[in-house]
Amino acid sequence: MTDLQQQLETYIDAHADEAMSYLQQLIQQPSVQTNEQGVQKIVIEKLNKLGLDVDVWDPVYDELAKSPYFVASRDTYVGSPNVVGVLKGQGGGKSIIYNGHIDVVPEGDRSKWIDDPFSGKIENGKMYGRGTTDMKGGNVALLLAIEAVIKSGTKLKGDVIFHSVIEEESGGVGTLAAVLRGYTADAAIIPEPTNMKLFIKQQGSMWFRVTVEGRSAHGGTRYEGVSAIEQVIKVHQGILALEKKRNASIDDPLYSHIPIPLPINVGSINGGSWPSSVPDLVTMEGRMGVGPHENMQEVKKELIDHLANLCAADDWLKDHPVKVEFFGAQWVPNAVATDHPFAELMKENFETIYKRKLKIEASPWGTDAGLLGKVGNIPSLVIGPGETKMAHYPNEYIEIKEVIQAAKLFALTLTSWCGVEPKG
Amino acid sequence: MTDLQQQLETYIDAHADEAMSYLQQLIQQPSVQTNEQGVQKIVIEKLNKLGLDVDVWDPVYDELAKSPYFVASRDTYVGSPNVVGVLKGQGGGKSIIYNGHIDVVPEGDRSKWIDDPFSGKIENGKMYGRGTTDMKGGNVALLLAIEAVIKSGTKLKGDVIFHSVIEEESGGVGTLAAVLRGYTADAAIIPEPTNMKLFIKQQGSMWFRVTVEGRSAHGGTRYEGVSAIEQVIKVHQGILALEKKRNASIDDPLYSHIPIPLPINVGSINGGSWPSSVPDLVTMEGRMGVGPHENMQEVKKELIDHLANLCAADDWLKDHPVKVEFFGAQWVPNAVATDHPFAELMKENFETIYKRKLKIEASPWGTDAGLLGKVGNIPSLVIGPGETKMAHYPNEYIEIKEVIQAAKLFALTLTSWCGVEPKG
Repeated sequence: MTDLQQQLETYIDAHADEAMSYLQQLIQQPSVQTNEQGVQKIVIEKLNKLGLDVDVWDPVYDELAKSPYFVASRDTYVGSPNVVGVLKGQGGGKSIIYNGHIDVVPEGDRSKWIDDPFSGKIENGKMYGRGTTDMKGGNVALLLAIEAVIKSGTKLKGDVIFHSVIEEESGGVGTLAAVLRGYTADAAIIPEPTNMKLFIKQQGSMWFRVTVEGRSAHGGTRYEGVSAIEQVIKVHQGILALEKKRNASIDDPLYSHIPIPLPINVGSINGGSWPSSVPDLVTMEGRMGVGPHENMQEVKKELIDHLANLCAADDWLKDHPVKVEFFGAQWVPNAVATDHPFAELMKENFETIYKRKLKIEASPWGTDAGLLGKVGNIPSLVIGPGETKMAHYPNEYIEIKEVIQAAKLFALTLTSWCGVEPKG
Repeated sequence: MTDLQQQLETYIDAHADEAMSYLQQLIQQPSVQTNEQGVQKIVIEKLNKLGLDVDVWDPVYDELAKSPYFVASRDTYVGSPNVVGVLKGQGGGKSIIYNGHIDVVPEGDRSKWIDDPFSGKIENGKMYGRGTTDMKGGNVALLLAIEAVIKSGTKLKGDVIFHSVIEEESGGVGTLAAVLRGYTADAAIIPEPTNMKLFIKQQGSMWFRVTVEGRSAHGGTRYEGVSAIEQVIKVHQGILALEKKRNASIDDPLYSHIPIPLPINVGSINGGSWPSSVPDLVTMEGRMGVGPHENMQEVKKELIDHLANLCAADDWLKDHPVKVEFFGAQWVPNAVATDHPFAELMKENFETIYKRKLKIEASPWGTDAGLLGKVGNIPSLVIGPGETKMAHYPNEYIEIKEVIQAAKLFALTLTSWCGVEPKG
């Protein structure tokens, strides 16, 4: 370990408690979507205190809507600021984005929480609260790393761009807005909770809705109608067949142990309105996984074409073709080559800090890394403290020592990737 | 045709307009369930005017609930009077029930009605409005028949018991209450809209709900869960198999032209709550047809046992058996032998009035005749003016001449079934 890294780690250990009380403040702001102002204010204060160039803006719906990667869960972002802080390098180095989303999913059923969901209570080395794991803990690890570099007087050659973004949980409007505003870099890290495994590829996904028609009739003469439930069963089987076909050709060793690398999940089914009537309309909604190297539009077309073919071959459906829509959220897939220099550096740095080999996986869900990768063309890695299984659940918590350890990795990554200006 | 019948028909023709304005008054009372008081008041006035013994009472929930034939769509009938009028005969004749329900289904989407749904407007020989066909038109035909008999000075030997009952549309609490109160007879007619065909058998039905469990998981790792949709598909197929089995053994010639004499209709399916989650619960609701000679309890058991066997043979369902419930409405099936004296009489009378043969069918839906038959042991025939297809639809109407013609048949049935005391 270099003296510099030693110095950074000493700083981080010495300021761990301070960082944790800062994390507590973030947790105590219930930054569910449309309520991000309070938490971003605290982020802005921190960035100002660190001396970064701070940019705060409400993403503009109409501008973003021009992007093919835009998906909206609401019709305005007024009052929901995005925040970026830039630490300008001395020049001659590579730049890096440290990206973390500041929105949290709702706490859900409060009766399932032992403490207030926004308490930030610390007990037995764990901090509890919505957003501890997903992903304010990771954000604080990033900030603590940046702080350590600044406070140690280290001058980086490359720029550090810190994204504190909104709307990740709905498909990434905040990150899209940051990239489109020009905040790109030579590499990026998103410390989503991977339990410090490297998610070098991420499955993207999109939501679809399939509407299937029947013909109503009285249940007592149901043979005069056509049950939309019987029709939808054929469509469901067709979807499973497409899933099988899509997965048959996957030979990436990262997926070799995964039963269905690119699942198509039918998540809900609803139709018919009366026990005594033949149902004339059934709707299914689901999530279609998109492979790391796939194109969202092509995958959409694949589903549309597959169901169109199914309908064309069916006596009823050929005259009553199913309607396929894509709606709501989508997450863009992402992939970085295992031997990409940034990935190689991460492996090396991880071994330095953790004294063990970095585990590399493909995640079954997407992150904002897809937008950084596809829109910003930025090699983006996902690695962070906390376990995926805690995210979105009651009594979410994060291990404090994991946050601190991650901060050390992220500090080393800043100096090793961006480069350090010799002192003097 | 006898002089008496000639006299009755002359009376009926002479009072057709009066009867139609009475029908208008009934239609103008929107007697949807819980709102029957207004219309029953008008019925009571008529029965009093005719000199019948009138009994008016609100059915008592707790008393009725003791009957195995009771099904409730609400928890009280206070304010929803049942009405019975009795015309005592001179003795020595057979008694008859003339039964008509006074409740109507809601008007539905008003924008689909050309006129006010409760206008009672007459145009081109048709009267329009909710309840014209189902079944105030039939009720007025009954009343006009009784009136003709009374006003012509005819003394019947047997009693005539007129039921103006509530709740038929929810499974027959009104008729059940009338029978349990002692208003039974040697035969009964219900003039539901059969287009003057004789429905000598009626399919009963009951509503069921089947709940199927899965196990939730994130859609990106859907193989970690068990889709309740995939499970429910097996159950749906099992239900269709049971329907096939039940219908295979039906050899009644009345059903020979009906593709599925006893359908099991799955009317709705609902489950899953999020596109990205594996659905852990799906519910189907449906209507199970009950054969004219079947017992409701045995048919329920057949469905329960069939699905229990299906579950027992399935890897997942054997540990997560489906839940089967019966809920909401039920209609008791009914059957009268084709050669029953009352049926023979109806055939004969029909030919006298209509100058053609009576068509005899088995209906694909139940009426209150099931309760009259099973609870009161009363041979009960369903025959009335108006077409089934108009019932429950917007712009419901009835042909006025059909009502008047039916009144003539019902008058003849009174004299021929109950017997007439010689004048003197």
